[in-house]
Amino acid sequence: MTDNSFHDDLIVIDALEASNWDRELLEELRAGGVTAVHITLVFWEDARATLDNIGHWHRLFENHGDIIMPVRSAADIEEAKRVGKTGIIFGFQNCSPIEDDLALVQVFHELGVRIMQLTYNNQSLIGAGCYEKVDAGISRFGRQVIAEMNRVGMLIDMSHSAELTSLQAIEISERPITITHANPLSFHKGIRNKSDDLLKALAESGGMLGFSTYPFHIGGTDTTLDAFCGMIVDTVEKLGIDRVGIGTDMCRKLTSGYLDWMRSGRWSKEIDSGEAKSAGGGWPDWPAWFQTTADFPNITQGLLDKGFSQADTARIMGGNWLEFFRDGFAPR
Amino acid sequence: MTDNSFHDDLIVIDALEASNWDRELLEELRAGGVTAVHITLVFWEDARATLDNIGHWHRLFENHGDIIMPVRSAADIEEAKRVGKTGIIFGFQNCSPIEDDLALVQVFHELGVRIMQLTYNNQSLIGAGCYEKVDAGISRFGRQVIAEMNRVGMLIDMSHSAELTSLQAIEISERPITITHANPLSFHKGIRNKSDDLLKALAESGGMLGFSTYPFHIGGTDTTLDAFCGMIVDTVEKLGIDRVGIGTDMCRKLTSGYLDWMRSGRWSKEIDSGEAKSAGGGWPDWPAWFQTTADFPNITQGLLDKGFSQADTARIMGGNWLEFFRDGFAPR
Repeated sequence: MTDNSFHDDLIVIDALEASNWDRELLEELRAGGVTAVHITLVFWEDARATLDNIGHWHRLFENHGDIIMPVRSAADIEEAKRVGKTGIIFGFQNCSPIEDDLALVQVFHELGVRIMQLTYNNQSLIGAGCYEKVDAGISRFGRQVIAEMNRVGMLIDMSHSAELTSLQAIEISERPITITHANPLSFHKGIRNKSDDLLKALAESGGMLGFSTYPFHIGGTDTTLDAFCGMIVDTVEKLGIDRVGIGTDMCRKLTSGYLDWMRSGRWSKEIDSGEAKSAGGGWPDWPAWFQTTADFPNITQGLLDKGFSQADTARIMGGNWLEFFRDGFAPR
Repeated sequence: MTDNSFHDDLIVIDALEASNWDRELLEELRAGGVTAVHITLVFWEDARATLDNIGHWHRLFENHGDIIMPVRSAADIEEAKRVGKTGIIFGFQNCSPIEDDLALVQVFHELGVRIMQLTYNNQSLIGAGCYEKVDAGISRFGRQVIAEMNRVGMLIDMSHSAELTSLQAIEISERPITITHANPLSFHKGIRNKSDDLLKALAESGGMLGFSTYPFHIGGTDTTLDAFCGMIVDTVEKLGIDRVGIGTDMCRKLTSGYLDWMRSGRWSKEIDSGEAKSAGGGWPDWPAWFQTTADFPNITQGLLDKGFSQADTARIMGGNWLEFFRDGFAPR
């Protein structure tokens, strides 16, 4: 394999972005060689509002079908690679779209949703988010939802969930689950990062972790690419080369008003800025080596520079997600 | 005060019923001398469906305004007594109508809702219901909702909530709260009944307990009126004469299909009959002394027979609720 064919053949998958998409951002994905991206349909939206957001994406597909296409299976990602488009994977950062209705799991699966977080930062009807003080684990409804997601082929994502809730999701789910965008607590002690115990349970059950480049998950804007890739080296040693990928949590063109929505939805008159308090509460600056998704080749190079083989680099950059999604997006 | 004037002047308040109302049932209230009743608008309904149920009551008021009237304040209950109608107090058996939207507390208060349970049997966005295995207490959203209910004058009802969640609601709320329909665990060991610790905390904070006549809360259909009133004697000794009332949990003309809705909403493909499993899972038979709300005079007589004075009997039958609602329904 020559260097050129390595880069030409590389499948790059970003397992979580939250950007406010337009033509410019979709072109950045192409510039970065991104084969597929898991986009965020909702933070707090209910079923009806989620239909709006799906409708918005239908219009994006109609207007930008020359560079993007919908993804409902791993085969669709391979097709996107073949035709030179970026595949779009629908996902929820909360279970709010299914409200209290078990039937909505299949409804949204039929509409193309393939990944759902069981909680955002708060207590949901299913479990506890990472900002709750106490974590009771998975609720009665939650057990039903997990079984239904297992049945229809919708991946369980615990990126924003509290520890016990996450451990129980791994235990209750009959299929592997994922944490699409977070880092090990051992690398950076952040509210959204995960303990070694949790990551070990995730990996041992066949699940996958996506490494986040979000400034508050890596320890700040000044964290170097070398340090980020060093974290990947360490984590691969603990979890195995097949259990990791990238989930940048990229947030482009989002306003401060949208940040308030992400934090407070409709549930609070106050705004808890969480980890952003120290940074003035606003959007953080991103590291120089990852300003936009056009910078994905920097991460590829960073992994090669750390000594990963081309084959292992390809696994981390997207190959692992592709195989994980091949099973996870398929019904039982 | 003669016996006749005692009965004529008696204010009878039932702090919870869940019946499927029609003219016959409204006439039973009149036959039983019921001055006001807290009716159930929802078990699992969301905001939109709750508007339907409020609209249904607007039609009931239009069609049966000769015998019922809406209650938004204690003064309305006194007016109902004066004009010989039964006052209707709107309440929710779940927080589902406010969804995840803090603003909906005031919206529903303006529509006349004066009592809301923070959970039904399951984990809600606010806290844990009594059928959940683990109870993490009040969530981030829950603290906001309690403050807002305190502000607008909507009573917090923990009848179906788990113990820690209930204790925390008492502690967090700046105004007294209520358990409208449950009995002491020390009388009957049922899932919905309450510990002495919880009832003590409730009473010490100025809250009130409504005694339930629901068969699974009193130990079965064969439980006598004497035993029921004996429980009230014991509880008054523990909590004080001012801290108790009646909340029958009467369920008239509800189908088995509606029972499935109450138990499973839209959240489960299975039906957990809970305490009704032993009784074949259907609606239980009610005790001979309380078949319908027309039997309320039996309870009044039972309390007098147990040796309560007329004044204390009047407190338990409705006087305590009237004073509790006088403050509880008023904004701060």
